[in-house]
Amino acid sequence: MTADARPYSRVALLGVGLVGGSVAAALRARELAGRVVGYSPGDDAERARALGLVDAVETSPARAVEGADLVVLAAPIPALPGLLSEIAHELRSDALLTDCASTKLSTIAAARSALGEAFARFVPGHPIAGGVRRGPDASRADLFEGATVVLCPQPETSVEACARITQTWQALGANVVPIDAHEHDALYAEVSHWPHALGFALCAAIASGERAESALQLAGAGLRDTTRVAAAPAALWADIVLDNREAVLDCARAFERQAQAVTDAIRDGDRAALVACFELAGNWRRRMR
Amino acid sequence: MTADARPYSRVALLGVGLVGGSVAAALRARELAGRVVGYSPGDDAERARALGLVDAVETSPARAVEGADLVVLAAPIPALPGLLSEIAHELRSDALLTDCASTKLSTIAAARSALGEAFARFVPGHPIAGGVRRGPDASRADLFEGATVVLCPQPETSVEACARITQTWQALGANVVPIDAHEHDALYAEVSHWPHALGFALCAAIASGERAESALQLAGAGLRDTTRVAAAPAALWADIVLDNREAVLDCARAFERQAQAVTDAIRDGDRAALVACFELAGNWRRRMR
Repeated sequence: MTADARPYSRVALLGVGLVGGSVAAALRARELAGRVVGYSPGDDAERARALGLVDAVETSPARAVEGADLVVLAAPIPALPGLLSEIAHELRSDALLTDCASTKLSTIAAARSALGEAFARFVPGHPIAGGVRRGPDASRADLFEGATVVLCPQPETSVEACARITQTWQALGANVVPIDAHEHDALYAEVSHWPHALGFALCAAIASGERAESALQLAGAGLRDTTRVAAAPAALWADIVLDNREAVLDCARAFERQAQAVTDAIRDGDRAALVACFELAGNWRRRMR
Repeated sequence: MTADARPYSRVALLGVGLVGGSVAAALRARELAGRVVGYSPGDDAERARALGLVDAVETSPARAVEGADLVVLAAPIPALPGLLSEIAHELRSDALLTDCASTKLSTIAAARSALGEAFARFVPGHPIAGGVRRGPDASRADLFEGATVVLCPQPETSVEACARITQTWQALGANVVPIDAHEHDALYAEVSHWPHALGFALCAAIASGERAESALQLAGAGLRDTTRVAAAPAALWADIVLDNREAVLDCARAFERQAQAVTDAIRDGDRAALVACFELAGNWRRRMR
């Protein structure tokens, strides 16, 4: 395929960590982009260029999006409103935009406020992929193969923009699922944000206890699995749960009811209640793909 | 190696599920036992014979231990006191005994009460191996390779018995670690029993909520890891946490303090407190082997 025949002539990545770097790697591996440029406030973009993930590093978001026909926001949540403001008046009139943030309501609000008419070409997205490693060195061209990518098109979103972003994620191997943005934030509070907070809290309890060292030496595979999420970047996850605060607090309350029921059953020696709860949990868990 | 040169001429397995079946498979793979016989109240022992894990099935614990020079108790915790009483007067005078229970104080108390002078040849043990599957079909001859096996010898335990059980586990590939029994139960409450209860409670909360189905479809790898323990056998784990009730409740309280601090920080938008807690957790978690 010649560069001219590629779907995108110039892709601007704002944020080039694990997810942004993997978008770059995946677009290049499939020859979907003529040129990929990156911007990051820190060293990630330079590192991404050294790794061959991006062709060039731009020194500002505005310069990065200049002439870009696809803009991918893959920066941490607190950076997104500022980035959107900085690029709003520099975008090509036909530029498509999407993002990779783990929460959608706040990103959508920021984009709606910043982008003006370009908001119709912004397709809010969330690739369910990542892991505990961070930064461009953790990037993988196959990160999205078989992964779910949630899109949350808005009433203003152009049908064509949504179709093209859908096709692009599908070309990277993802299963694209459209979901209402409120539902997205409630669902991922439940299956990701609160479980991360729980994993951190469990590790913090053990790390603060008198058996922190022997626990490291003697724990089995169960704890390793249960707590893997706590190795994820702390600040990034603090920002995610704070951004999705109300939904996460709803999940905390629902969880606390179950945890209290389990604790009561243990204290009371109520085996039947404990088995019933564990079986409800296990029957659900065994249906997970 | 001829059968006569093997360390054990006859091994009796009381309980032939995942762990007992794997002990049988591992002993046979390494030619450590002349003959392996199994007993189980249900179908596990017959299935283990069909799978070639044991040579014969005995119809009672007493018959199983007749002539055995090694007796391995690998039955669920509630069955152990009864099994110990049934075998106490049928044991060879030089028979070694060990067990595989996830809690040690109650097993030790039951054995001390039932076994009389044979208690000196009982070496309390806990292989840190297993998983969410159960039954002899899940058995693996390499289950203990690289695994930790905790032993909790008592003041009465014969030094020779402890040395021989240590050598046997080491011959199966395990790293043997001696620990005080109180410390064992406190430590495994913290790194295994309470985390299992938490994993069950988390799944029960999601399974009871209105997003139980979409959570199954759309959750990422994080939730799959965090909740894997909830696919473990419900009744078996209910019995473990109930048997270790006080230690598990201590862990529940320590965890609740951390979970409450996390929830407070989310509610108050206290990013610094949240990041500090998550970093404490992550710094500990990243040190896990």
